[in-house]
Amino acid sequence: MRLGTVRRNGGTQAFRQEGGATTYLPARDVGELLQQDGWRSLAGEQGPAPEPGDLDQPVLRPGKILCAGLNYYAHAAEVGQDVPKYPAIFTKFHNALVGPTDDVVLPAASSKIDWGAELAVAIGSPVRHADEAAARRAILGYSAHNDVSVRDWQGRTSEWFQGKNWDRTTPWGPVIVTADELDPEAGLAVECELDGVRKQSGTTSDLIFSCAQLVSYISEFMTLEPGDLVATGTPAGVGLARKPREWIPAGAELVTRIEGIGELRNRCVPE
Amino acid sequence: MRLGTVRRNGGTQAFRQEGGATTYLPARDVGELLQQDGWRSLAGEQGPAPEPGDLDQPVLRPGKILCAGLNYYAHAAEVGQDVPKYPAIFTKFHNALVGPTDDVVLPAASSKIDWGAELAVAIGSPVRHADEAAARRAILGYSAHNDVSVRDWQGRTSEWFQGKNWDRTTPWGPVIVTADELDPEAGLAVECELDGVRKQSGTTSDLIFSCAQLVSYISEFMTLEPGDLVATGTPAGVGLARKPREWIPAGAELVTRIEGIGELRNRCVPE
Repeated sequence: MRLGTVRRNGGTQAFRQEGGATTYLPARDVGELLQQDGWRSLAGEQGPAPEPGDLDQPVLRPGKILCAGLNYYAHAAEVGQDVPKYPAIFTKFHNALVGPTDDVVLPAASSKIDWGAELAVAIGSPVRHADEAAARRAILGYSAHNDVSVRDWQGRTSEWFQGKNWDRTTPWGPVIVTADELDPEAGLAVECELDGVRKQSGTTSDLIFSCAQLVSYISEFMTLEPGDLVATGTPAGVGLARKPREWIPAGAELVTRIEGIGELRNRCVPE
Repeated sequence: MRLGTVRRNGGTQAFRQEGGATTYLPARDVGELLQQDGWRSLAGEQGPAPEPGDLDQPVLRPGKILCAGLNYYAHAAEVGQDVPKYPAIFTKFHNALVGPTDDVVLPAASSKIDWGAELAVAIGSPVRHADEAAARRAILGYSAHNDVSVRDWQGRTSEWFQGKNWDRTTPWGPVIVTADELDPEAGLAVECELDGVRKQSGTTSDLIFSCAQLVSYISEFMTLEPGDLVATGTPAGVGLARKPREWIPAGAELVTRIEGIGELRNRCVPE
């Protein structure tokens, strides 16, 4: 099952796709849908599949966005870090997010803006102190995410947050594919292209901490709730690790693609 | 003017205090109050001042909580850090917060739980790319906050977040005192007591980055919105920097006091 949110009639509406059919549902977004009992079989109105350009963020305002850093073996190696013993967790707030084909805003205050395609986990049920099996059951599904980072601000202090949370820098979507249809541990291709040139080509089988392990770890210290997101880190190939370093140029088209989910296609426009 | 939220009649209600009078207002909390035009003079029902034990968090679910680390000269010195060139910003989500007399929950997973009394800034109007003067105008007022930290988890990776965001560890309140009534740059006493023993005794005139400077700095990369909080860092005297180190024992009473605002009084109970 694929869950998403479409812009239509001056508002937004959640939809569900199964077996080629699209059903438009009585909810403003997937976040509101998840609050309804029996949302998996909620009645709605069948219609044509939405156009990619009409899609909004599946959850319009995720309550929490947790992000793992250094979570691919090949990426930890390219930035010269040891394999971490614990996940490094940083955060974003909803102001950082944009939809799957929205413009990404390149901050005027920096020219060192990097890409980072990631698999994101969407939480489906409240979860705290979960072992790996319980954490897996709390996962609603998976989405694509690009952790666009302002590298000079990220490196100003030990805390990466101020390089990670610029307004309208982080695209995600296009839909959430439910966990029964997708197994990241079996290996999903994670790709990033800039103006048609492949910059990252990884696989989720290279993840250091699996999706369920990350959810379990985070749930040890905080309650995750439906609609919360956990971004799982980026594979090798970021601009920071290239020789010479590369950054996103003004006007570039950034494509983020995850096997079995789909793609984000965002124009990067100067602020 | 003092703004707060009281628990009453099975729900919560915002109130305003001016010139000794308390007015109960048609809003569920200060966050909802701020969304109403003319909230400063909104009509309500006069009544007796609320009991301290009936107070809830002034804003029940702040959208964003930004926290400055290492922001007092004496604290940076006690933990052996240079005076930072830029503010180190980490975050909390609403799950970490409790009200001014609620129990603080000591995680079972750690015994290294530290205190940290802080002045918190509450944002009153949306702000982005603000210079110091514009940032000052966006400040609604000031509150007290205790950045209770799980030090071993904080130190597991470079990112402090996982030591800072445990469910129900961070008390704040008891009210927001509006900015026209309080000037942190002139120096407000910031105190922390554990079971009646003074552990911290600082003054906001020792802040490295002032409240307006922090809001200005954060607004360079993200939009702050009404009800968002900016915790400004803790003065010297944390348990981590003591010889030998000290941690919050189970059952302790933690008192956080800021001159001109009031105090938080929280029992620290094991999970």
